[in-house]
Amino acid sequence: LNALLSATGTTVFTVMSALAVQHGSINLGQGFPDYEGPEDVVKAAADALLDNRNQYPPMTGLPELRQAVADANRRFYGLTIDPATEVVVTSGATEALTACLMAVLNPGDEVVLFEPLYDTYLPVIRMLGAVPKLVRLTPPKWELPRDALAAAFGPKTKAVLLNTPLNPASKVFTAAELAFIADLLQRHDAYAVCDEVYEHLTFDGWKHIPLMTLPGMRGRCMRVGSAGKTFSLTGWKVGYVTCDASLAPNVAKAHQLLTFTTPPNLQRAVAVGLNKDDSYFESLSAELQAKRDRLAAGLEKLGFGVLEARGSYFITADFSPLGFSGDDVAFCRHITEAAKVTAIPVSAFYDNPADAPKHYARFAFCKNDAVLDEALSRLAAWK
Amino acid sequence: LNALLSATGTTVFTVMSALAVQHGSINLGQGFPDYEGPEDVVKAAADALLDNRNQYPPMTGLPELRQAVADANRRFYGLTIDPATEVVVTSGATEALTACLMAVLNPGDEVVLFEPLYDTYLPVIRMLGAVPKLVRLTPPKWELPRDALAAAFGPKTKAVLLNTPLNPASKVFTAAELAFIADLLQRHDAYAVCDEVYEHLTFDGWKHIPLMTLPGMRGRCMRVGSAGKTFSLTGWKVGYVTCDASLAPNVAKAHQLLTFTTPPNLQRAVAVGLNKDDSYFESLSAELQAKRDRLAAGLEKLGFGVLEARGSYFITADFSPLGFSGDDVAFCRHITEAAKVTAIPVSAFYDNPADAPKHYARFAFCKNDAVLDEALSRLAAWK
Ligand SMILES: CSCCC(=O)C(=O)O
Ligand SMILES: CSCCC(=O)C(=O)O
Repeated sequence: LNALLSATGTTVFTVMSALAVQHGSINLGQGFPDYEGPEDVVKAAADALLDNRNQYPPMTGLPELRQAVADANRRFYGLTIDPATEVVVTSGATEALTACLMAVLNPGDEVVLFEPLYDTYLPVIRMLGAVPKLVRLTPPKWELPRDALAAAFGPKTKAVLLNTPLNPASKVFTAAELAFIADLLQRHDAYAVCDEVYEHLTFDGWKHIPLMTLPGMRGRCMRVGSAGKTFSLTGWKVGYVTCDASLAPNVAKAHQLLTFTTPPNLQRAVAVGLNKDDSYFESLSAELQAKRDRLAAGLEKLGFGVLEARGSYFITADFSPLGFSGDDVAFCRHITEAAKVTAIPVSAFYDNPADAPKHYARFAFCKNDAVLDEALSRLAAWK
Repeated sequence: LNALLSATGTTVFTVMSALAVQHGSINLGQGFPDYEGPEDVVKAAADALLDNRNQYPPMTGLPELRQAVADANRRFYGLTIDPATEVVVTSGATEALTACLMAVLNPGDEVVLFEPLYDTYLPVIRMLGAVPKLVRLTPPKWELPRDALAAAFGPKTKAVLLNTPLNPASKVFTAAELAFIADLLQRHDAYAVCDEVYEHLTFDGWKHIPLMTLPGMRGRCMRVGSAGKTFSLTGWKVGYVTCDASLAPNVAKAHQLLTFTTPPNLQRAVAVGLNKDDSYFESLSAELQAKRDRLAAGLEKLGFGVLEARGSYFITADFSPLGFSGDDVAFCRHITEAAKVTAIPVSAFYDNPADAPKHYARFAFCKNDAVLDEALSRLAAWK
């Protein structure tokens, strides 16, 4: 069997979700809302099933969704994107990221990534015969270590994989940080795979800046968006890549090998979603910010050290002030069993969990207020 | 950019479908029905959107669909499959095939395949650093050259990729042929990735036999089915892998890297479909057989040499009796432009089209009768 996959454990999200079900625990682990997305979008998807368009759509996506993606790029970021040649619709952002990596990497190429990181990046890169070069952000503020980043680039660097807003650290990369990265990309003639699935989920006035909007970056970036995250419909698995016409054909060919195409009814509904007016996107982030505040305040009151969360679905909480004598994996299992609340150990977002920070747990706050409150009172009772 | 993808042309299905649109041609190229799937299945998918289950389903698929897949395996083939540990639901059969190849192949491994073949197999195998070993079936009856097949196996053989019913040749592998393959797999301790997406589309009393049902094959085969093909809903992109519990974890981990999961509403509807009674599956193949007969008779009358088609959506037709002075690529382009009917050149199903048979065009018959008739009269007018 494939040695790399055989050596890889089941993803922590599945493991912890299964454990949560087993223990009747409130699942603040895997990042999915427990509420539904906008009614009009869901209804559009249901209606779209019923009018005889259930066969293969074009490989790169339905024209109406590609147009909506291009329009959203202009509206939110001032990017001019040709919907015919610069958008590839995929079966979720996971597929989009894998397709972008396939599009540019050759065996032996190096890819620069930031830890903590999402758990599909490294196995995909290694499966393609490429070599990850890891740079650790520095907690608790998840600062970018510029010298280490510059040192990670070299003659074999083909790409950087940048996730902003960042899961799990909820960091939103700043204009200055992005400029530093952009400069390295230009000097090393490299590409960027930009995981921007949380682009619309930023708080406290923090604004997401696509690396692609920086000078010199238009032709180097493959920008990945997610309908699941943008419309609170994580099961739909509709993603989109925005990239220069010089890159899109390879992304499309990778997509052909991975899924070929994506259900047309869901594509049509996502187009409806992306065309919604600004108030939708504003209330999405405002509602999530309120949830973040609710959970953060509750965790702080319980004694956790709550790290700043500028975007995404997640709070990172330092549980060491609570005096628990075990690492983050033990802590997350323990509260699942003893408090019936599930979180994800942050060390799972490191290539080598053994020498990662071991005192952080990631809590998802994309849940109904009553669920957040119940989780907090369970933790209070346990403590 | 990735050299392999850069060197690969856009898939022939997209190229010919685009050409068909451009010329207002009847598209008998890409294999998709121009009619809809069963109403109850479509309605189930629409209803399933509306009851608050639009978040991530379990990575290996919803329990009700895994159960339905296991039940279908028992009912149609007498296979006993554990729905909890031996089924992985994927975002279409394309993803399923890629996931199965990822699950078993290591760089340097060899994979035995039969030409003509579907155009995603080879790039995926090469992307994984594995080496294809091609065996050509012999037209016009697409016989299995047993000596060549035995010679293709060697100490590095890790797997065979077997597509039956076979696209584009519409061959249904016989029990004797499968036994020959099974014997080689056992002697070389190899796996089989079984592309069986046309399993329910067989004609004239030909029955699909999964390689997995042969003695010794239960633990070696990854069997791929397709809801798109089984329910005439090709855009839905729901596939399923059935395999031994010793293989399923690696298939699931590959699935995690490719798409992670598949839309829950479509999964629920496909479960409804698989649970339909026998009459559905019987009329599906009966209706397609009638369409095959209609198109075959018409093409014969026009002078084509029509090859036997025992299954799938496709007829292979020898156009050399028509006296067209060009190869199959020229022929398919020519009839698209001049007759406004599109077919796929069969040489596109060979690794090296230059030395492939060049006198065959593949016509899809999964179309309304009126469309097939109109295509035939356009070809008559052109001729
Ligand atoms: C695709 S499962 C994981 C969901 C997610 O993005 C997360 O929890 O980090
Ligand atoms: C996924 S596009 C091709 C559809 C098909 O199976 C075919 O036409 O051969």
